[in-house]
Amino acid sequence: MSGPIVVDSVAALRAQLRDWRREGQRIAMVPTMGALHDGHISLVRIALERAERCVVSIFVNPTQFAPTEDLDKYPRQLAHDLDRLREAGAHLAFTPGVAEMYPAGFATKISVGGPSSGLETDFRPSFFDGVATVVAKLFLQAAPDCAIFGEKDYQQLCVVRQLCRDLDLPVEIIGAPTVRDTRGLAMSSRNAYLSETELAVARQLNVVLRQTAAALAAGADEASATGDAAEALVRAGFRKVDYVAAREAVTLAPWRRDRAGRLLAAAWLGTTRLIDNVEISRG
Amino acid sequence: MSGPIVVDSVAALRAQLRDWRREGQRIAMVPTMGALHDGHISLVRIALERAERCVVSIFVNPTQFAPTEDLDKYPRQLAHDLDRLREAGAHLAFTPGVAEMYPAGFATKISVGGPSSGLETDFRPSFFDGVATVVAKLFLQAAPDCAIFGEKDYQQLCVVRQLCRDLDLPVEIIGAPTVRDTRGLAMSSRNAYLSETELAVARQLNVVLRQTAAALAAGADEASATGDAAEALVRAGFRKVDYVAAREAVTLAPWRRDRAGRLLAAAWLGTTRLIDNVEISRG
Repeated sequence: MSGPIVVDSVAALRAQLRDWRREGQRIAMVPTMGALHDGHISLVRIALERAERCVVSIFVNPTQFAPTEDLDKYPRQLAHDLDRLREAGAHLAFTPGVAEMYPAGFATKISVGGPSSGLETDFRPSFFDGVATVVAKLFLQAAPDCAIFGEKDYQQLCVVRQLCRDLDLPVEIIGAPTVRDTRGLAMSSRNAYLSETELAVARQLNVVLRQTAAALAAGADEASATGDAAEALVRAGFRKVDYVAAREAVTLAPWRRDRAGRLLAAAWLGTTRLIDNVEISRG
Repeated sequence: MSGPIVVDSVAALRAQLRDWRREGQRIAMVPTMGALHDGHISLVRIALERAERCVVSIFVNPTQFAPTEDLDKYPRQLAHDLDRLREAGAHLAFTPGVAEMYPAGFATKISVGGPSSGLETDFRPSFFDGVATVVAKLFLQAAPDCAIFGEKDYQQLCVVRQLCRDLDLPVEIIGAPTVRDTRGLAMSSRNAYLSETELAVARQLNVVLRQTAAALAAGADEASATGDAAEALVRAGFRKVDYVAAREAVTLAPWRRDRAGRLLAAAWLGTTRLIDNVEISRG
């Protein structure tokens, strides 16, 4: 099987997609920062169920990294990524450089309120501005019928849904379940930073979240349960816990027991920051 | 001749435009806040030269008014506007209500840097955020091939160009010359606020700007010439001058004599704020 078509300019992307669209083919997009793992590949599979053509963007977006963050060391492995996309059957890889996405004089920023409040934003204040701006650009460059985002980045999924709703971006957003290893660790490109010892600790994150979500569903006090969860993570070996928080599943407003809920967490292992989230069943 | 089709929902707008697009017709958009005058009608005429179909949006956008500004008294006269659009041959009027454009929970803002710096922004800090957000929404709702904006709102025209460039909005932006009355006063919906006495003063704005632009083109010192212009406006009867400023014509960066220039001004007559601008010929 031949690999995906690879284009690195907006003009070439649009030319190819115009041909497919003219033939009446639906287009699904999977925006990524590369370093593709089984989680990304699951998004490609869902895309291929939803549309005739799957476009995967690979772009490590500098505007969603703070100056102190891991932009420089973020894993870049295009040849490996293209191999994985070929195996998965993706049709096109869009691999723009920074100058193609942000030419000299670029000066526009999109800020999404609502679900971007708190959680990640408390620790990465410009993160969702960077995400919203690049996602809007990718959608306007490719004009896909739908786009697939993993629930692993749950707050990002909510922010992207709000972005499309608010700006009338005609793209259907599809959330995909988090892919985990056999011991429940959520797939993440940043797992590559972890030693074997750290991986063992990292696997406690989903365990603690599932236990805490079950306790909340069974009626546990919210502040005590999330406080206990943070302590359990530190005991397990996490260096620092940024948050463990229960939220309403769609708006990310404070959790209410009569609404669908989500339990979200971010914690540090050495210099690596991990996030995860699980559903809170209705009590 | 029958009048334009009038729709007030995004769904109805898209359904109509889809039909026209399927027939291979190009669509030109003229975004307005209503209270249509000859300036707007000139934009419709240009639209009809550029495309088979002309869509005019009429929406008094609350997010581009500050709390102290004239949102409540801004002229609204839909029946008159539809008459004028019928005479001009526009095909569709999109007249959404505030709840259609900003449904409950709306939370997104687009900020364009670059040409939005200074000038209007010094006096109306959130104005261009409101403009950029509503223009992006209108373009995403209608997906026109091109859109016509008047040079009367010169800084706005520059901001909209930058918005489309930065977000890859596939809409060609066409700037149209300011329409003036026989004595040079730029057409503006806000002229309706002026008494006969004030109108006589208002007509000095373009006179002073043309004289000043000619002096600059002939080599006059920039600071002296713009300072003199502000004094001349006050002597003519303007209550207050917000700015008279020379800028580079495309980026609105500080003016350089070897580049195309623009002279822009904003000044108050009673409680009415007028703006205007003229070209500075290359020296």
